[in-house]
Order: sequence, then C-alpha cells, then structure tokens
Amino acid sequence: MEPCITLTTDFGDAGPFVGVMKAVLRARAPTAPLHDLTHHIAPCEPAEAGFWLARCYRYFAPGSVHLAVVDPGVGTARALLAADWDGHRFLAPDNGILPMIVGGGVHLHALDPAWLARQGWPAPSHTFHGRDLFAPLAAALYTGSATVADIGPPAVPQAAAVAPPIVGPGTVSGTVVAIDRWGNLITNIDAGLLPKGAGARAVIAGRELALGATYGDAPPGGLLALVNSFDVVEIACREGNAAATLQVGRGEPVRVQH
Amino acid sequence: MEPCITLTTDFGDAGPFVGVMKAVLRARAPTAPLHDLTHHIAPCEPAEAGFWLARCYRYFAPGSVHLAVVDPGVGTARALLAADWDGHRFLAPDNGILPMIVGGGVHLHALDPAWLARQGWPAPSHTFHGRDLFAPLAAALYTGSATVADIGPPAVPQAAAVAPPIVGPGTVSGTVVAIDRWGNLITNIDAGLLPKGAGARAVIAGRELALGATYGDAPPGGLLALVNSFDVVEIACREGNAAATLQVGRGEPVRVQH
Amino acid sequence: MEPCITLTTDFGDAGPFVGVMKAVLRARAPTAPLHDLTHHIAPCEPAEAGFWLARCYRYFAPGSVHLAVVDPGVGTARALLAADWDGHRFLAPDNGILPMIVGGGVHLHALDPAWLARQGWPAPSHTFHGRDLFAPLAAALYTGSATVADIGPPAVPQAAAVAPPIVGPGTVSGTVVAIDRWGNLITNIDAGLLPKGAGARAVIAGRELALGATYGDAPPGGLLALVNSFDVVEIACREGNAAATLQVGRGEPVRVQH
Repeated sequence: MEPCITLTTDFGDAGPFVGVMKAVLRARAPTAPLHDLTHHIAPCEPAEAGFWLARCYRYFAPGSVHLAVVDPGVGTARALLAADWDGHRFLAPDNGILPMIVGGGVHLHALDPAWLARQGWPAPSHTFHGRDLFAPLAAALYTGSATVADIGPPAVPQAAAVAPPIVGPGTVSGTVVAIDRWGNLITNIDAGLLPKGAGARAVIAGRELALGATYGDAPPGGLLALVNSFDVVEIACREGNAAATLQVGRGEPVRVQH
Repeated sequence: MEPCITLTTDFGDAGPFVGVMKAVLRARAPTAPLHDLTHHIAPCEPAEAGFWLARCYRYFAPGSVHLAVVDPGVGTARALLAADWDGHRFLAPDNGILPMIVGGGVHLHALDPAWLARQGWPAPSHTFHGRDLFAPLAAALYTGSATVADIGPPAVPQAAAVAPPIVGPGTVSGTVVAIDRWGNLITNIDAGLLPKGAGARAVIAGRELALGATYGDAPPGGLLALVNSFDVVEIACREGNAAATLQVGRGEPVRVQH
Repeated sequence: MEPCITLTTDFGDAGPFVGVMKAVLRARAPTAPLHDLTHHIAPCEPAEAGFWLARCYRYFAPGSVHLAVVDPGVGTARALLAADWDGHRFLAPDNGILPMIVGGGVHLHALDPAWLARQGWPAPSHTFHGRDLFAPLAAALYTGSATVADIGPPAVPQAAAVAPPIVGPGTVSGTVVAIDRWGNLITNIDAGLLPKGAGARAVIAGRELALGATYGDAPPGGLLALVNSFDVVEIACREGNAAATLQVGRGEPVRVQH
C-alpha cells in the first residue's frame, strides 16, 4: 500500500473548501493519493478529530501524512503543530488533537514563522489555513522537501481535547466523543480498560445498560452497550437512535462498572 | 474503461466509516479505481440500494465489483452473498438487495465460514463488516484471488427487498423506492411496463397526475409524473418538493393507469 | 499540475447522480483526474455556482475543464453554453453562471443540435443532462476531440445570475451569494472594491458591523465583517452562526461604507 495524505476536517459539504484544499495538495504533491477520512467532524470539535484519527491512522501505509483541520482558532495566535509518530506524520492546530494521537515523550513541533517565510509560499489568509498552510505543509512532508523537525522547534502543546478515561477499582469512566449516522454514541473507553469478568454494565444519563456483543443483543428499540469495531465502548439503540433516545451528545460522561 | 470497485452504502457522512473501508480496499487491491455510487442510501433501506445498483451498474466496465453495504443485521447470523451477473460481480448482505439486481436462475453464493477461516484475515468485528468482510472480499474478487463460486455454496436468498411491479390490464402498480435531493419520488415502475397509448395517469396518495415528459410540463409548484433518466416513473413537483407536498415517502404505492 | 475536470453541482448526496455522471466521465476521458469542487450548491441557485467557480478555477491547472450543473431548466429549451477563458474551459446551462466567470468580450458558444446529432451519443434523457450531455461534452473538450468553438455558434447568454456589486462614493453594495457550514454569509463584494481608509462598516439586515481581520476580532457570539480567504466580504459570528443570528440568507443586500 502506497503512503497517502489523509484529510480529517469539519468543513462539511457546503462550499468548495475541501475541493480547493485538495487542489493545492494536488498541485504541490502530484503523486500523493488523497484519502478522505471524514469532513464531517462536528463543527469545532477537536476531540472528535483526535479520537477518529488515533483509531484510524493504522489503516494507512507508514509514511502517510495525516492532516486534521478542525480549527476554530484560525487566524489567532494558536500554533500549528506537526508530529512524527509510529511511522506516520500528523499535522493539526494546537487545540488538543495531536496529544490524543501520539505517545508520551514524542516532540510536537510548532511551525516557525521564520521557516515559513523562507518557503516563498503565498501569504496565508486569516481564515483558511487548511488551504494556505496545512496543505502546503502536508505536501512538503509527503514529498520529503521538509521533515517534521524542519518546520520549527518542539513546543509544549495544549492538553488533549478530551481527558483520557479514568480507571478505578472495578470501574472505568470516559466520555462520548463521537456520534455516527445512526445515533450511536461512541466513547473513548478502550476495550482493554474494561473491568474483567462478566456482568459489566454501562451507566449513561442515569441508565444502566448491559454490555452486549452486537446490535442484535437488544430487542428492537432497546438500548445496549457494546465494544464496537474500533475497540471502544459504544451506546446503541437497536433499529433506533441512542443519541435521540437518551437526549445526550458529545461530552456526556459514561461509566462502565460491575 | 477500466473495471473498478463501486461502493453503495448507508454510512452517510459522520465518522470515518467510508474512509476506513476504502483504506482496506486500497491496501488489498492497490490498482482498483474506487468509485462511490452513493453513501446516502436511507439508513437500513436495502430496497433503495438494490434499486439504484440495478439501474446503475451498466455505467461501469464489465469486470467491476459492486459492493452494497446496507446491513441492519450486521453481526447477526444473516448470510453474506456474492453473485456473478451480466459480466459484473456483486456483494451484499442477504437482505433482499441482490434479488433486485440479478436475473432469475443465477446462483447467489453465501460466504462459507470455513473458506473465510482459511484466508487468514483479521477476525471480523461484530459491527463493521463493510471494513472487515465486504472490503477484503471485494478486493479478492477484483484481483482474481477468489471467484464468486470460491467463497461458498449457492444459497436460497431472502426475497427481494421490494416486490417487483404488478402489471394488470391497462394498469401497473409499483412502489416509491427512492427520494432524491429535490424531493422527487422515484418508483420501481419501468417505462417498458407502462400501459400503451396516450392519456396514462399516475395515482399516488389519492391524487391523479398526468404523465409528462419533463419538469417543465407542470406549472411552477405543480405536481406531475414522468419517466425519468433511469427509465422509471417519477413523481415530481416543478420548482417544489413532491415528497413534502404529498407527505409520502419510500414504500408508498403508486399505480399508473388509463 | 495536470489539467483535470472539476465538478460543481447542486446534486447533493441522495442517490447515485454524482456517481453516474463520473462513471460517464471516466468511460469517455479515462485519463482525466476528476475533482469535486462541491455538489452542495443550494438547490437551483446558479448564482452560488457561478460565484464559487469564478473564485476557485485558478487553483487548477490551465487546460482544465470546469463543469457547473445547476440546472432547474433541464429538459426545457434553455441552451447549454461553453466558454474558453483564461486558459480554462467552462460548461454550464444558460442561466447566468458563465457571465459571472468569464470576462467581457468572450464568446459563449451554445450547443448546436446539429453538431450534437453528428456525435452519435445515446439520446439524452429529459431530466439528467449532467450525465447525458455535460459529461460527454466535458470529456470531448478534455480529450481534445472537440473545441469550445466546435460545439456551436456564439450566443447571447442570459444575464449574470446575480448582479455585480455597485460602487458609489465611499460605498459599495453587493449581495450574499453563499453560506458555509458555519453559517458565515459570503458576499460578492471583492476586497478591491472596498472604500479606502479605516473605519469601514458593513450594513446588513439593519445592523452595522465593524470590518475586522479575523474571527477572533469579535467577542464570542459577536457579529463582525471581514475579508475572507476568497477575497470577498463575509459576515460572520464568532463561535456562532451569522445566518441564523441575522435570519438572512442568499440574496440579502449588503453595503459597505464609511
């Protein structure tokens, strides 16, 4: 499998934002396959971008460059960060995305205005760094004209956009970080953190739900928890919509316990 | 035109589901062009997937592999089916999609767990067979490492997800199977089934509508029926939304008569 | 950068319309990279298509073919137009899209039924010219089997779908032409038309807004105007939705003045 450039944004569908960012990538890295991970991260939710990219980057070839542009602070003084981790390269604004992906002890490099000035790129706009900074940077990393360390010095990043789960005796507490098309509530609780043994239950919004194996383990319309295909706990409603049924969304606390 | 792998799903936009399924296809069939037909089949509506794929596969080169993943039964005991038809290969869960596409007398082969076990693929999750089973299978069919007959024995499938139209004397009765962005109601009534002669009218939700040739045949805001670009009867509202005007959706009966 | 075929439509997500149009392009111009600009132009809003294409085509290589299919008049007698401008080729229905893109004095050529008949293409449907006429035409222009002048004689087009801004003493008046995912109201007022000097303010829906440089120039929840990344005036709401806050949409008048 050939390394590629993946894109994860909150640009959605309206307007040519994704199309133009990809035009810049195509112009500067003509041989790079461009691969959309999703452009429908909830607007201004870096936690969702960090979560999905952390769970998905291994499906791509080492050497790939992963671009996460969920950037409510665009045009302010927030830094732009790059990291080299597990054979992959990552680019994102400094709003807690990369600390959800890379391991401890990995340097996050902040784009240095002096390095940027030497590249001779067009002056960036104040409102679309996906096109003006992230795309040229991703192309430079992909083609090898720059390394992560080239773009600037190591920086101390903002904290992870969502705190990692907390493990206690017989219990683990986490957070809803994403919602899919069917209204399933996806948490950041990795299966490896679950209390051992049978009979574990998930607690969310005052409800206790048995931990099943597949959607068919609940009756039609029934709520259940399960470990989903990305190896995290998910709250689902068979043939229904768990988010609507429970009236909860991203950020909702979830606890799994005996 | 090169054969390709087409994708038809109800995954929608939220999350990286389409992106990750395509990453697996790219890894296992690196030379296959991947072509999105649509990822916005109404959630859990196999009838819409079967309808569109039946009407669209001929736009692709013979030798293409067509993947339809609308799969509310994922993780249950439902079979996974493959078929070879008209020079194309098709893959879908056993929920009535393939019988809407392939001709009578064609064998539908069900994935055999024993064959699957011999492939050495990662163990499938319970909730994302698009990534874990359908994508590797499509890649195997595309690259030629497996044939449709290899994957398992012929099976008796579930019935078509929507019944074919019924032709009577001077009348034909069918069903709304899809709705497009403009609210046009698309039926499964093929133009070839229409009663001969002028003056045919479509009956839907208690309304009788003249059969026009183009949207311009109704006044602005007016309802009409026509044979659309996929050669089936469609109920439209000029410069308006027929689904909203008539307050009907998928599954609504439609009759065309003199 | 290789020339490509770009697509700008109001087809949205539902159904296989984009997928099938691209299948025809792939069959007829197998080497052409296909590049989506957006398929989410507001339904039947040629002004939005013309605006975005005018602002975006320069991100693609000269020699590219740009297809804009926002076509409420499909199947009526409206003409189909092609133009050669600034090293690029453009195709659109005659509803005011191309006059928003090409310069004065450029010939717009109308598809000639006699030329069309000589091509031996399948008979077009009445409702899907994107697939049946625009895609084959774009492929012919891309592969060089036809030039813009070949397809028919110069024609007098419909007026631009939205009037250009009007510049007066110390003031410029324009129109909201697009809304992005975040509810930002994007106008057709080019930065080059703004009254010189500090203190300019934008007037929209009875509100006067200071002209800032970036979203951070307003307090959270506050409205502001700025020159956006496509060099036009945009009305935004920091961490909010300007369209919802002001309760206005496409077509709304905007004035910038001292």
